[in-house]
Amino acid sequence: MDNFEKPALEDIRTAAARIGPYIHHTPVMTSACLNKLTGADIYFKCENFQKVGAFKFRGATNALFSISDQELANGVATHSSGNHAQALALAAQYRGTKSYIVMPEISPRVKIEAVKGYGGKIIFCRPTLQAREETLKKVIKETGAVFIHPYNDFRIIAGQATAAMELMEEIGFPDIIMTPVGGGGLMSGTSLTVSYQSPDTIIYGAEPEGADDAKRSLKAGRIVPSINPDTIADGLLSSLGSMTFPIIRKYVTDILTVSEDNIFESMRLFFERMKIVVEPSGAVPLGAILQHREKFVGKKVGVIVSGGNVDPKTLSLLRNNKLNL
Amino acid sequence: MDNFEKPALEDIRTAAARIGPYIHHTPVMTSACLNKLTGADIYFKCENFQKVGAFKFRGATNALFSISDQELANGVATHSSGNHAQALALAAQYRGTKSYIVMPEISPRVKIEAVKGYGGKIIFCRPTLQAREETLKKVIKETGAVFIHPYNDFRIIAGQATAAMELMEEIGFPDIIMTPVGGGGLMSGTSLTVSYQSPDTIIYGAEPEGADDAKRSLKAGRIVPSINPDTIADGLLSSLGSMTFPIIRKYVTDILTVSEDNIFESMRLFFERMKIVVEPSGAVPLGAILQHREKFVGKKVGVIVSGGNVDPKTLSLLRNNKLNL
Repeated sequence: MDNFEKPALEDIRTAAARIGPYIHHTPVMTSACLNKLTGADIYFKCENFQKVGAFKFRGATNALFSISDQELANGVATHSSGNHAQALALAAQYRGTKSYIVMPEISPRVKIEAVKGYGGKIIFCRPTLQAREETLKKVIKETGAVFIHPYNDFRIIAGQATAAMELMEEIGFPDIIMTPVGGGGLMSGTSLTVSYQSPDTIIYGAEPEGADDAKRSLKAGRIVPSINPDTIADGLLSSLGSMTFPIIRKYVTDILTVSEDNIFESMRLFFERMKIVVEPSGAVPLGAILQHREKFVGKKVGVIVSGGNVDPKTLSLLRNNKLNL
Repeated sequence: MDNFEKPALEDIRTAAARIGPYIHHTPVMTSACLNKLTGADIYFKCENFQKVGAFKFRGATNALFSISDQELANGVATHSSGNHAQALALAAQYRGTKSYIVMPEISPRVKIEAVKGYGGKIIFCRPTLQAREETLKKVIKETGAVFIHPYNDFRIIAGQATAAMELMEEIGFPDIIMTPVGGGGLMSGTSLTVSYQSPDTIIYGAEPEGADDAKRSLKAGRIVPSINPDTIADGLLSSLGSMTFPIIRKYVTDILTVSEDNIFESMRLFFERMKIVVEPSGAVPLGAILQHREKFVGKKVGVIVSGGNVDPKTLSLLRNNKLNL
């Protein structure tokens, strides 16, 4: 018996049934060209086609539809400038409640517009973690909204775990499964599903060399915070959480790190060869296959492509041809 | 009885069966966001996910597998700097024969590499239509290869016609169907399939304002050549052919023209909202929906998204932010 809390297989199945009517059952894509290039047999679960453009909608929807009407009377709140913000806003709209999103005042206009478009109420703050947390505290105190953490939450983890379940329903059990690792919601959920359903599958996390706190955390046996991460993969800057870390420590085989060059190259391959738009964070696992080729040759590999929301910083690199397109 | 040659429904069904083992049965995608934006109910048949990244592989494959081994002994030849070149090279590889592709010496490196990658033998020529035709004639004389025209060919038209057949198998009969119009292979084939199977469906072609020779041809009642076309939609520069024109004249309801701004805007919407890469020519029909909104509101619309091969010229616009990304 583990001494940490984690969703059981039944919780993940319940989450899948609960969110089923609201989420996209996203397609699994393959590419003869990428298989030839890598020597592996890769199945991409395309969460870039998920609502709001990212897997985050699974967890947010599971959280929102797990909470009672009474508890939700005053809405939900979070701080995020990324995909969790949009996911929570849209899930709250489906659930018929309000959402309060604390965002740094320097957030890109497109992200602000997206959250507003999904009906979220935005509260701006200064761009520091302290300001975000203090502003959120104040919002919760004033509104009575329920805080939904982007990853360190039982319901969020169970929701994210459903992507791997769908993938394996479609392709069977892979030799290897891989997701990117940021705060660890997708990684921990995926590792649970796969351990429960296909215990022989190797489970890798992929993270940028410039934000390798998960690798260091596993090595140290404790959460090593992500300090000054330096990567284009803007969805992977968070530290692991107290709930996600022990799950990852127990169930993930290893964390593979990826150079910025391989992240760019993977985005380019998705764009040019597969004709799909993948955000840098979502390209990290393919980058890991390019960088650690020998681990994947001849293997059936499932990859969760986490999202497709390419932000202005990345687009400026695109425009400056850093992607070599 | 029409006094022009055209594939019958049976020819299109035969083509579908013939190419079935080689082509991708491409997905049909929808977008709640684009439906909301346009007021229409749009089904995108994603031929950008087809092999070689374009519908052209359907026609080329149908042509190659229609020809006897004996006739194919010396391979096939064409002149093209676009998707037909890659399509013919790959189809010839599948068919186990050689392909000779005459390309202008100024063709982008990526296109040259792609044709070579599919096993095509490239013969360079000066970048004029006359040089292309003369070089092709010489290649055919020297090699004995069979010429496969990119669109003015019964087998090519029957092959391109299969995309609409697959689309309607999946979504039923739409109120409107639309494809881009260049040389008219996809347009004529689509109009035949839809007229045979769903005679009440309105059939639109979409073409750039800067390359509106199909519209002018229908008006004039004869083929008006495409002279000095000016558009980013580099797949739609050709004139209609003697086989495609009469089919289009009889079966296509109307040709809608599209501004460059709306072509850009449509590419952006595909990229940002649907997370898919669509080449400018493939974005023209969505541009037509934006530009002629009133024709589409409340209608079930099928669109053939013709391809996803974004060429360097377009990417430089992307980099210069002309796409407003």
